[in-house]
Amino acid sequence: MPIPTLEWKRNSLRIIDQTKLPAQLVYLELDNLQSVWRAIKNLQVRGAPAIGIAAAFAVVLGIRDVRLKSFSQFENRLKRVTEYLRQARPTAVNLFWALERMERAVRLHAHKSQAFLNRLLLKEAQKILQEDKDICRSLARFGSKLIKDKDIILTHCNAGALATADFGTALGVIYQARLQGKRIKVYADETRPVLQGARLTCWELLQHKVDVTLICDNMAAELMKEGKINKIFVGADRIAANGDTANKIGTYNLAVLACFHRLPFYVVAPVSSFDLRLRTGKDIPIEQRDPQEVRSVFGRQVAPANVKVYNPAFDVTPQHLISAIVTERGILRRPYKKSFKKIGGLK
Amino acid sequence: MPIPTLEWKRNSLRIIDQTKLPAQLVYLELDNLQSVWRAIKNLQVRGAPAIGIAAAFAVVLGIRDVRLKSFSQFENRLKRVTEYLRQARPTAVNLFWALERMERAVRLHAHKSQAFLNRLLLKEAQKILQEDKDICRSLARFGSKLIKDKDIILTHCNAGALATADFGTALGVIYQARLQGKRIKVYADETRPVLQGARLTCWELLQHKVDVTLICDNMAAELMKEGKINKIFVGADRIAANGDTANKIGTYNLAVLACFHRLPFYVVAPVSSFDLRLRTGKDIPIEQRDPQEVRSVFGRQVAPANVKVYNPAFDVTPQHLISAIVTERGILRRPYKKSFKKIGGLK
Repeated sequence: MPIPTLEWKRNSLRIIDQTKLPAQLVYLELDNLQSVWRAIKNLQVRGAPAIGIAAAFAVVLGIRDVRLKSFSQFENRLKRVTEYLRQARPTAVNLFWALERMERAVRLHAHKSQAFLNRLLLKEAQKILQEDKDICRSLARFGSKLIKDKDIILTHCNAGALATADFGTALGVIYQARLQGKRIKVYADETRPVLQGARLTCWELLQHKVDVTLICDNMAAELMKEGKINKIFVGADRIAANGDTANKIGTYNLAVLACFHRLPFYVVAPVSSFDLRLRTGKDIPIEQRDPQEVRSVFGRQVAPANVKVYNPAFDVTPQHLISAIVTERGILRRPYKKSFKKIGGLK
Repeated sequence: MPIPTLEWKRNSLRIIDQTKLPAQLVYLELDNLQSVWRAIKNLQVRGAPAIGIAAAFAVVLGIRDVRLKSFSQFENRLKRVTEYLRQARPTAVNLFWALERMERAVRLHAHKSQAFLNRLLLKEAQKILQEDKDICRSLARFGSKLIKDKDIILTHCNAGALATADFGTALGVIYQARLQGKRIKVYADETRPVLQGARLTCWELLQHKVDVTLICDNMAAELMKEGKINKIFVGADRIAANGDTANKIGTYNLAVLACFHRLPFYVVAPVSSFDLRLRTGKDIPIEQRDPQEVRSVFGRQVAPANVKVYNPAFDVTPQHLISAIVTERGILRRPYKKSFKKIGGLK
């Protein structure tokens, strides 16, 4: 049932080129470091968990094609590769988390051959991928408890199968609730500027035969006023220790609207989205993207070419606007720091 | 200095084709009823005041080319023409207001020739146009009192010269404040789905050398949180007796955000935008537009072709979220019904 967003096939990373959806379903076979880096940067693969997985395989690709004569050469190369990948996108913490795991995987094997280390790296990447599948299912099980029959859910951006290796985070919860026989309607924010909601979430939900209606981002408030929304579910790119959550730009807007209209606002994200080095969301670096993303839509100019643009890729929702954070180990409630410790923290 | 959005030239209505902006500045000379109707329907001319003016000239065009043998024939034709024009767009009340004025202009002239009546209609349309220019200037004078030096203003859709025959409503206030030497920055919501903010407001503000930055609609909340916005100014398409205001979809969202962030939220609109037959905003009919406006952007498909869409052209902001309504006769404050009476009501 899930869409194979990321697979390791024929010694390459096979991904869906998400910039081509929904018009075309195109698979890319990425067999070198640079092509994965570009795919992350250009949003051909996106979504915090998916970026982490792609980066892990990029490490495999970045090491295997270079002949390294010693472990220190190997370590240097590994460092250069992971540093390079860290530059691709600054906000989603899963990228950094996955790269750290890759580094850790080989750290204690100084006396082994490169072939052995290469296999170790590949194993670790495959483990990250497999774990993500399991995490999606756990998120879905916990999150689906928050959904009742006949709920009408609003979601933003794409926190679905296309953002993970399996079922998705926020959308996984919806798929699970439907498997439980609950009747659900979904409204999807189109999510300007890159339109992940219109292009990816609608496509994905239609593939799964979910009753979905597309809206422009500025219509959510009116829907809430009309009583047409019960609950909001979104994903996360990075969560600070206190629960402040960075997610796709427009998420904070929805959280304010949910608060004003007294609707529950849920974040669904794996434990790996937590970054405990950051006390609050103020410390989360926010990626600023190319103004052309706003001035033009798929090459068609929609604004004067010389107009200034503000184009942050993410915003931060303060913890007090979040009703609960669903993780693969349970549902967290405020105060999030304490609640997170209770489920075991980062381990 | 103002951009000639609407002019009566060579016995035709000359308008800027706003669907072509900002890529091209194209003027259309409309010399018959149907072409003006289509221009209104297809948003080649838009903005509540501009629609009213265009409709008034459309009446002139719809009558002058038909030979009518009696006043009752004339009256019938006039009725058919105005009914037809009322169908073009249902929400902005200025359209209905202008058509009523056109009907009233000839009502007491049963014994006059058609040529005389035609001239009377043309005169009335020209009067509506001239009055709109004066109204814009009065709105600007009153509204500019609400602006301080170094204010940073957020606006939505296009309530500028392109929406009127002169200076604009919300943007007119900004132009006036700048004439007074106040330094002002403006953020413009792109205003999905038709992108009037990106295409029209940015273009217009750049023409007037105003410091403008374009954002996607879902970024306004983040700007407010960052303390980058002082005030919000928007126009109106229809205002109920209690002050509830219909305006471009997304306006209500901004009003909620302004309330949450404790920022003043101002509506700028001529007295003719008030519809006293409606007690509250619940009675304002909201135009639902073609789903294709959301599914595609200028012909480029951005969502699955078969996905359902919710596409209201307007939303209603309840009066309690509006800090003040600026009219050409003064600034109204809550309770708006009383405040409106104080400035003389509809007259």
